[in-house]
Amino acid sequence: MNASQWPERVTVREVGLRDGLQSLARTLPTAQKLQWIQAAYDAGVREIEVGSFVPPKLLPQLADTHDLVAFAKTLPGLCVTVLVPNLKGAERAMDSGADGMLLPLSASHAHSLANLRKTPDEVLADIAAMVEARRLRGSAIQIEVGISTAFGCTLQGRVEADEVLRLLNAVLALGVDRVGLADTVGYADPRQVGALFAQARQVAGPRLGCGHFHDTRGLGLANLMAALQAGETRFDACLAGIGGCPHAPGASGNVATEDVVYLMASMGIETGIDFDKLMALRNSVAQWLTGECLHGAIAQAGLPKTLRPTPLMA
Amino acid sequence: MNASQWPERVTVREVGLRDGLQSLARTLPTAQKLQWIQAAYDAGVREIEVGSFVPPKLLPQLADTHDLVAFAKTLPGLCVTVLVPNLKGAERAMDSGADGMLLPLSASHAHSLANLRKTPDEVLADIAAMVEARRLRGSAIQIEVGISTAFGCTLQGRVEADEVLRLLNAVLALGVDRVGLADTVGYADPRQVGALFAQARQVAGPRLGCGHFHDTRGLGLANLMAALQAGETRFDACLAGIGGCPHAPGASGNVATEDVVYLMASMGIETGIDFDKLMALRNSVAQWLTGECLHGAIAQAGLPKTLRPTPLMA
Repeated sequence: MNASQWPERVTVREVGLRDGLQSLARTLPTAQKLQWIQAAYDAGVREIEVGSFVPPKLLPQLADTHDLVAFAKTLPGLCVTVLVPNLKGAERAMDSGADGMLLPLSASHAHSLANLRKTPDEVLADIAAMVEARRLRGSAIQIEVGISTAFGCTLQGRVEADEVLRLLNAVLALGVDRVGLADTVGYADPRQVGALFAQARQVAGPRLGCGHFHDTRGLGLANLMAALQAGETRFDACLAGIGGCPHAPGASGNVATEDVVYLMASMGIETGIDFDKLMALRNSVAQWLTGECLHGAIAQAGLPKTLRPTPLMA
Repeated sequence: MNASQWPERVTVREVGLRDGLQSLARTLPTAQKLQWIQAAYDAGVREIEVGSFVPPKLLPQLADTHDLVAFAKTLPGLCVTVLVPNLKGAERAMDSGADGMLLPLSASHAHSLANLRKTPDEVLADIAAMVEARRLRGSAIQIEVGISTAFGCTLQGRVEADEVLRLLNAVLALGVDRVGLADTVGYADPRQVGALFAQARQVAGPRLGCGHFHDTRGLGLANLMAALQAGETRFDACLAGIGGCPHAPGASGNVATEDVVYLMASMGIETGIDFDKLMALRNSVAQWLTGECLHGAIAQAGLPKTLRPTPLMA
């Protein structure tokens, strides 16, 4: 890849409040979540997935999502998204005033059944109903479908690229605004990522707009780089890499936001995020989550002297 | 990068016995180092940097290098290399029967002075003397120059690509067999790695033959991927990522051998290394080094179900 092929700017969406916290047994108090949102915003983060409209019985850690959306929507220019598993959740998301909702669709049949008790095609029907519900309400909420387990599945093993592309085509035909590919369990490799993002781009064009990578097996940033090289410029990340993998004690969760921001800054690619403010927030999160397993390399080693000066480092 | 551009095979040189152990305060007993060499060989590793001919006073951890070479040379087809800091060390390397010697040359003036008490140009003169010593003895030992701090330096900060290329040209003119680029302190980024490897390839052609990456700031594998994409197919790695950075407690050292082997296997690129045997060795090393900070993601998370069957996994 020559210099002209690198993007000037990349968007990092903070998903720690959802994908990170939902994996922890403890519930972070709402007051601290509000501090998290405010501090991330102050650091320059402009997209935050603040929670999920799943039944509070299933994920009590995220039961305050409505209040988080209400607060986050007071911050000018912040894109506030929530995860939504079904039509009821979509109605709540539209009620909440969120800017966007993320609908997960497992490309793995086995994962889909385990996670949502529905086959991928049954989930497609749900997504159709959610798109229709949006139309009926005249809501402007953005609908993004995240194809989870797109690169493999701990339950099923292999997930065929053809199945991922079939599902992508199907949701695009339903009229969703954006699609993304997620390596939910850390099975992806850079070769596979580059190939699937290239194929997905041909199917989805500019509507392909998110790479979601877990660092479970250490390849998170290498995979993110492969997607970047295939033209992707929007990525999910989780402060301090919280989340982890319940089946692998000590293994990482999502790629760490601060590591992604450092990676981009090291290459002279803007994220709009102030590193020092982000690290101050990370320190707060580490205090709030004392005892949890945190991740991320840059927090241990510190920035190099050579980091290129960019606006974000001013 | 399309499929045809990926190499079929990559060579991983184990450098844990040198770059890893030299950073630890403890001295691993010779008997365990011999077990390490034997087990790595049995796992399919065919290049091992077994130690360094530096004065034992400076690095007592590596004082048994001569004995390690003697043992390693009994293993058919194993390429046995040693690090050599000066002419005296080169004479000892040639006496030992090692197949190759690695001569470090810091591209950072400040690092060169701190590490060898010589400027890079003074080290060039030493390298000339070592090449001449090899000629006079009629030795067949291979000479590889590793350009250290090629991507930046904790002491000096920036290291200019032009200086790296000047030094590369100079050592190639002296008649060394191979050159490599090392990110000694974990300052490199993938964009920089891709660019410098491409430039170095134009200067050195097939004599460019090693990428040495540290994972200090989490970019080790992303940087290795960038070098791979720029045509490099030979990499140093350190079992369990031992070594670390003395200035950053908990930060990683070299990229972990097992993570590099997993990365390659995940992309269907052969290393000739049996993963199960390598992990059994890692477990032994972890026992021998109880109390040291080990690294590596795959050891925590385990292989995915989907790993492509390749000869190395048979």
